[in-house]
Amino acid sequence: MYQPVTQEIVSRLEEIVGKKNVIFGDAEKLENYSHDELAEKEYAHMPDVVVKPGSADEVSAIMKLANEENIPVTPRGAGTGLSGGGVPAHGGILLSVENMNRILEVDLDNLMVVVEPGVVTNDINEMLAPHGVFFAGYPMSLQSCFVGGNVAENAGGGRAIKYGVTGRYIMGLEVVLPTGEIVEFGGKRVKDVTGYNMVQLMVGSEGTLGIYTKIIIKLLPLPTSKIDLLALFPDVETAINVVPLIMTKGRLIPTGIEFMDRLSISTTHDYLGEKMPYPETNAALLIELDGTNPDQLRDEAMAVSELLMENGVIEVYAAETPDTQEKIWKVRRNIAEAFKAISPVQSLEDIVVPIAQIPKLMPFLAELSEKHDVLIPCYGHAGDGNLHATIVKKAETEIEVWKETLPQVLTELYEKMAELGGTISGEHGIGHKRKKYMPLVVGETEIALMKKIKLAFDPNNILNPGKMFDL
Amino acid sequence: MYQPVTQEIVSRLEEIVGKKNVIFGDAEKLENYSHDELAEKEYAHMPDVVVKPGSADEVSAIMKLANEENIPVTPRGAGTGLSGGGVPAHGGILLSVENMNRILEVDLDNLMVVVEPGVVTNDINEMLAPHGVFFAGYPMSLQSCFVGGNVAENAGGGRAIKYGVTGRYIMGLEVVLPTGEIVEFGGKRVKDVTGYNMVQLMVGSEGTLGIYTKIIIKLLPLPTSKIDLLALFPDVETAINVVPLIMTKGRLIPTGIEFMDRLSISTTHDYLGEKMPYPETNAALLIELDGTNPDQLRDEAMAVSELLMENGVIEVYAAETPDTQEKIWKVRRNIAEAFKAISPVQSLEDIVVPIAQIPKLMPFLAELSEKHDVLIPCYGHAGDGNLHATIVKKAETEIEVWKETLPQVLTELYEKMAELGGTISGEHGIGHKRKKYMPLVVGETEIALMKKIKLAFDPNNILNPGKMFDL
Repeated sequence: MYQPVTQEIVSRLEEIVGKKNVIFGDAEKLENYSHDELAEKEYAHMPDVVVKPGSADEVSAIMKLANEENIPVTPRGAGTGLSGGGVPAHGGILLSVENMNRILEVDLDNLMVVVEPGVVTNDINEMLAPHGVFFAGYPMSLQSCFVGGNVAENAGGGRAIKYGVTGRYIMGLEVVLPTGEIVEFGGKRVKDVTGYNMVQLMVGSEGTLGIYTKIIIKLLPLPTSKIDLLALFPDVETAINVVPLIMTKGRLIPTGIEFMDRLSISTTHDYLGEKMPYPETNAALLIELDGTNPDQLRDEAMAVSELLMENGVIEVYAAETPDTQEKIWKVRRNIAEAFKAISPVQSLEDIVVPIAQIPKLMPFLAELSEKHDVLIPCYGHAGDGNLHATIVKKAETEIEVWKETLPQVLTELYEKMAELGGTISGEHGIGHKRKKYMPLVVGETEIALMKKIKLAFDPNNILNPGKMFDL
Repeated sequence: MYQPVTQEIVSRLEEIVGKKNVIFGDAEKLENYSHDELAEKEYAHMPDVVVKPGSADEVSAIMKLANEENIPVTPRGAGTGLSGGGVPAHGGILLSVENMNRILEVDLDNLMVVVEPGVVTNDINEMLAPHGVFFAGYPMSLQSCFVGGNVAENAGGGRAIKYGVTGRYIMGLEVVLPTGEIVEFGGKRVKDVTGYNMVQLMVGSEGTLGIYTKIIIKLLPLPTSKIDLLALFPDVETAINVVPLIMTKGRLIPTGIEFMDRLSISTTHDYLGEKMPYPETNAALLIELDGTNPDQLRDEAMAVSELLMENGVIEVYAAETPDTQEKIWKVRRNIAEAFKAISPVQSLEDIVVPIAQIPKLMPFLAELSEKHDVLIPCYGHAGDGNLHATIVKKAETEIEVWKETLPQVLTELYEKMAELGGTISGEHGIGHKRKKYMPLVVGETEIALMKKIKLAFDPNNILNPGKMFDL
């Protein structure tokens, strides 16, 4: 059992970070730190105290105190998470990295940037743009999320086909361990096989193995041109079948390939007061290409368009300017909002399947939807098989019925993932929300090994307990 | 202490893999499995018995037996390693994966291939070429090395700037744990945050955490064109300074940027009976560009050439055909052989520094060479800071003097790596050869964590003991 946060503990925390960086006894302020962006309120939990350290040394002192006194600590970024990873599930100390928000170094000669965890992801690229380089991590919440949270969740997003996910760019980390030691993994080195790959073990560990206090990020040359293609299809299978062809036959790696099913498109059209140009559309792909040579990009867009036309597309729209691109992206961007307008009671999912399995997934979602009388729109990152199927309560369904139904729907959905060679989270994480389902897709021995790793780092299980699995 | 391999153990191994797949009591045959490609003979060690399993079940049975009986097991690929990773440092069982050499599945719809660990790396790409896709892992030994060894060492090579190293393409692994359980990590999923990143923890673990029995590899569209540029420079600094400019100013990511210093070039020229066209050359870069559009590639080559000319190059040669490319690459390919001809007594190093530190490294190598009266040619992958500085015994130096000198040279070299933010191995691994030096670049707490991870997987320390660190 964990120990409570007493007034004496609060005083010691105040000594470490200064009185103004501690929130205690103010329910309204504490409440802001009790949840993330999950729609489901049951995963929220109040912290006993919030601390906002300003340095690795302060984080270290907090962890030493917590470890000695057996008090749980939950690290938190901007609170934009979607699995409850930054929610203090066991109360205790909420450690917000919001004050550690400096860009420490822009090292153009090494094509690296060194940042603190509390920097807003998009700010890094705004600062870098004049230098002709960028950080290719691209979570959908980049305008508000912190880079530390991106690393903790190994955030993905819509450009992973070409650029991979966050972890690919993380070269080094300064980490405060649960026991308080400050360690360094990796560095400004693009090749490093000196011991186990501790950097990538830390990436995606959901704040359970350590707290990042410094992040070394590799940069790429900034693309200067972009073309978006919106392709409408008569059915899901035709749309999905073309996805691998772009890479195998077209020999092109697009920046992203987004997918939207009919329900996602029509609901969003209704929400936006727009109309589908071709009523027979049952699926759409949004294909993004980027590069530094506009002529070559046009050639590539042409090649993709031809491939689409040979493979059953109804119509392709190309957008080369920011204005037309925004028009094309408008529906995709508004899907989540459109379904929230129908019902805020929902479960945003983050399933992944091997891309060739997507056609099998779609009729299954339709069956599941009918069987349990819920809406299941499906959209997301088709190019990497990561789809945000969302279980949405119908307006007429009683909340009590929904509460009984949802776990059944999730169980059947996740079991299907296992059957299709997929998994239950591609980029949002396990956190609090999905931990009870992890055994459906990860073996017992595999989970036992993960728990041993957790205990190797955190023998008293005080750092972000209750996430990913229970010990 | 480990138990010896008795006749009874041999009989039980024969029952598992069949008599023809066990080598015991035949010193000549066993000797083949006692070393890898390391020049230093002191890291060789005879196995007591060699077993060649044909399936995960057989590997599992071997590990269960070894774990119960406390006998060390060393997994081995093709024996092309350069750090002693596949050498049975404590004798016992040498587990060769040479019979597990099937390409199990070519899944073009998912752009994945599933292979056993004993497949020769280059065979994968020869088989895939007609399909227009390839595996972008590119170790220099690809004609002979096994893909399992590539994964175990997280092999790099000359194309890492654009394509990254082996680990980027490893999406899933079937692994036999040291305790004999067969587990699966990852799968045919390009995004997966379901628990810790066990796949990337296994990659580069040098055969100390488990034995891969199945490897799922992501494929890329195959480039159809290639241009090589050979650039000669008056000094190292001018050559190295241009490397980041290609990416920052040129906004291009070349496939590879290889570097050769004067000593490497002139020794290899002597060895090949060739002459340097410009006697004032003190350094050279070999810049490789690839893609699918020949016109665009020519534009890129032109842009790089112009950048080189604005930045102090003496001369640039471009090669677009396989013949001219081979001519350009001939010197680079023969450096190692040229120095072996001078003296087979040498230590091939694999140091890494942040690329902008290479100019500081070069004068240091010259000093070190003079101070200890050894040759230190330097060549390698400048684009990622991974240089194969090689400490070579001068012909006239007594072997006893060399044996005393080498550890001093290595210690000073590795200490300098730490000072420059580099490390002691970028792609060859720690293995047997570098383990005593790892504390020079990796902290005590960090190594202690790695040891805990090792024990979480291998409580009896029977899998490849004596590599990376001693327990």
